[in-house]
Amino acid sequence: MLIVQKFGGSSLATNERIMNVAKRVANSYDSGNSIVVVLSAIGKTTNNLIDRAMSINKSCSKRELDMLLSTGEQQSCALMAMALHSLGYPAVSLNASQVSILSSSDFGNARIQNIQTNRIKSEIEKRNIVIITGFQGIDKNNEITTLGRGGSDTTAVAIACVLGANACEIYTDVDGVYTADPNLIENSIKLKEINYDEMLELTSLGAKVLHNRSVEIAKKYNLNIVVKSSLNNEEGTIIKEKANMEKMLISGVATDRDVAKITIHGLKDIPGLAFKIFSLISKRNIVVDIIVQSTLNEDSNDISFTVQKKDLKETISILEKNKDYLEYRDLTYTNNLVKLSIVGAGLASSPGLATAMFEALYDAHVNIQVISTSEIKISVLIDEDKEKIAAKSVHEKLIERSMG
Amino acid sequence: MLIVQKFGGSSLATNERIMNVAKRVANSYDSGNSIVVVLSAIGKTTNNLIDRAMSINKSCSKRELDMLLSTGEQQSCALMAMALHSLGYPAVSLNASQVSILSSSDFGNARIQNIQTNRIKSEIEKRNIVIITGFQGIDKNNEITTLGRGGSDTTAVAIACVLGANACEIYTDVDGVYTADPNLIENSIKLKEINYDEMLELTSLGAKVLHNRSVEIAKKYNLNIVVKSSLNNEEGTIIKEKANMEKMLISGVATDRDVAKITIHGLKDIPGLAFKIFSLISKRNIVVDIIVQSTLNEDSNDISFTVQKKDLKETISILEKNKDYLEYRDLTYTNNLVKLSIVGAGLASSPGLATAMFEALYDAHVNIQVISTSEIKISVLIDEDKEKIAAKSVHEKLIERSMG
Repeated sequence: MLIVQKFGGSSLATNERIMNVAKRVANSYDSGNSIVVVLSAIGKTTNNLIDRAMSINKSCSKRELDMLLSTGEQQSCALMAMALHSLGYPAVSLNASQVSILSSSDFGNARIQNIQTNRIKSEIEKRNIVIITGFQGIDKNNEITTLGRGGSDTTAVAIACVLGANACEIYTDVDGVYTADPNLIENSIKLKEINYDEMLELTSLGAKVLHNRSVEIAKKYNLNIVVKSSLNNEEGTIIKEKANMEKMLISGVATDRDVAKITIHGLKDIPGLAFKIFSLISKRNIVVDIIVQSTLNEDSNDISFTVQKKDLKETISILEKNKDYLEYRDLTYTNNLVKLSIVGAGLASSPGLATAMFEALYDAHVNIQVISTSEIKISVLIDEDKEKIAAKSVHEKLIERSMG
Repeated sequence: MLIVQKFGGSSLATNERIMNVAKRVANSYDSGNSIVVVLSAIGKTTNNLIDRAMSINKSCSKRELDMLLSTGEQQSCALMAMALHSLGYPAVSLNASQVSILSSSDFGNARIQNIQTNRIKSEIEKRNIVIITGFQGIDKNNEITTLGRGGSDTTAVAIACVLGANACEIYTDVDGVYTADPNLIENSIKLKEINYDEMLELTSLGAKVLHNRSVEIAKKYNLNIVVKSSLNNEEGTIIKEKANMEKMLISGVATDRDVAKITIHGLKDIPGLAFKIFSLISKRNIVVDIIVQSTLNEDSNDISFTVQKKDLKETISILEKNKDYLEYRDLTYTNNLVKLSIVGAGLASSPGLATAMFEALYDAHVNIQVISTSEIKISVLIDEDKEKIAAKSVHEKLIERSMG
């Protein structure tokens, strides 16, 4: 079997943990498997490097930031190779340039485009454990890029796909995918299986278990991902095409605080305005999430949409610079919101679930600001300080009772 | 003018120092020059990374250690680019792979073989300040190598040579080349100029100002190097082909504590034994310095030689494993020695200088264990604890008096 194993920064935070990961990898190797390991940077390295950069230049170049950040994974991979050597196992570390993980040129948020397999395969043939830097790539000009927060998951899944690996194991500090954040909802339940679409929704809705892009790639290649803990031997959660959801209609409740809402007031009701607005914003690589448009009267619209908090300032500035071009009246924005979502393949066929969610929020005296729905999820924006009480009420009504 | 400027780790130890270096670079740029900057890792980064590696694996792979260490310069270069940006200057950092600094495959002690200039030149044409990682290369298999302690000097000189730079400035924490270590000999004198050969001898004899290989390359290309302080605006020392030595016969006194002496006793007096011994040792990339052979009687020899302290254990082990092959009686070794040397173009033509040196040592009651001479230097091995008194006596007799 060819197995790709990915370990996150907290699994590498101390020498003892590095040795534990090395032993776990060695065990899999001893069972006769070929092993490719993908690593994040150690512990808080990435955050510390960002802080260091900011201390020198608050608005530092994304290209230079990627040069800086990519060193973190190179360090953890070299140290892991040394740890495996000390246990008597053959291992070699490779960075994105050595593997040739080709990506787009969007520094800080690049997408993997192509991975060469010849170097990896030749190391596997030598029976080496191959340790590869997660989170990073090189673009066509040989510039170093990074894939965004959680990007190491994507590296691992992409490598598993191009190698045709038999398994892709994502080791993290939680032992699987839960119906809600266990830190928020103590009765949250670990899922044995979940399908790609639901996992995608959960991930993009704020469940931090996996990088969104990694699930997209796994779905495209129909690769099963196992999410499990690096700290124990619990079974974990399998992400696959057809998951047995144990008769659960809702697979999870997710909340996301990284939301800022902008409303553009008094837009003319003419075709193409939405296109104009969102093309201006997406050119700057700002991701827009929920979009809601409401018609006030015959010739005036409001459009509300959400972006990540870090992008709020830039988005406002883009819109203000283009006020004449877009011909709107004014802007308002708020960033003390939280997005609460429920996800489940059963949503489309059970319209009563939406009603049950709104009822749960009503029971908890939570005011809903914006509603947005899709085939398999319902999201609402609510006040930030209602996060816990709202999530608890929704989880109880839609998940705990259906399990009971 | 095209100027290459190299800054060492202590010049980058704090954010304040990084900004000072950035300002110095910016000043040179403002004078209309094209600037290439070569940097070492920040402060103690390299030592800290070595300690981290040793804490995981005491005899860690040199290949993996180079993967680890090379991150240090990448970090300092990215931060320097950010610092220059914050001052409003265009700058781009490049690592050895991006420049394509091709080296041999001797991990930890690689030699630069070739440097591609196209990427550097295209950045210069865009009027970018180009910031390049010192100390590292990539070999023909795309493996990351490092050039050994002080290797950033060599990177800077090699880049200056291939670019045909008008000047190569090495900024360090001393303000030039002295006739002796100023920390050891308070009357040591800063040289205005020194020629390549003398600098080579001083460097290989333990004066830590410049990496030996950098002077070799500068000599080959006839490139003038200026060594000056990053902390002040003192003039520094120029290293060039024909230096005006101001009538000094001796250009410096150097001491080196990184010396271990091994003696092989009772070797047969047959041809080829020295070749056998030193080919075994050099295969392991261990550098042998002084070699002295003495004939005891018609068919038995002793050979003494010195290696760096870090290589003592490995050298002994090589010799012990090959005892039958080399047919010697026994080995002795010591590592509490210091090598004291005098260097000067005038040595060959002034035989009295050797006598004066031995007299100075005699005056200081210092016992000489081994003597080794060349055209322009005389080295002696003495007890480690006599370092200061011996150097002081020799410096006074051979340098201070001749200046007076």
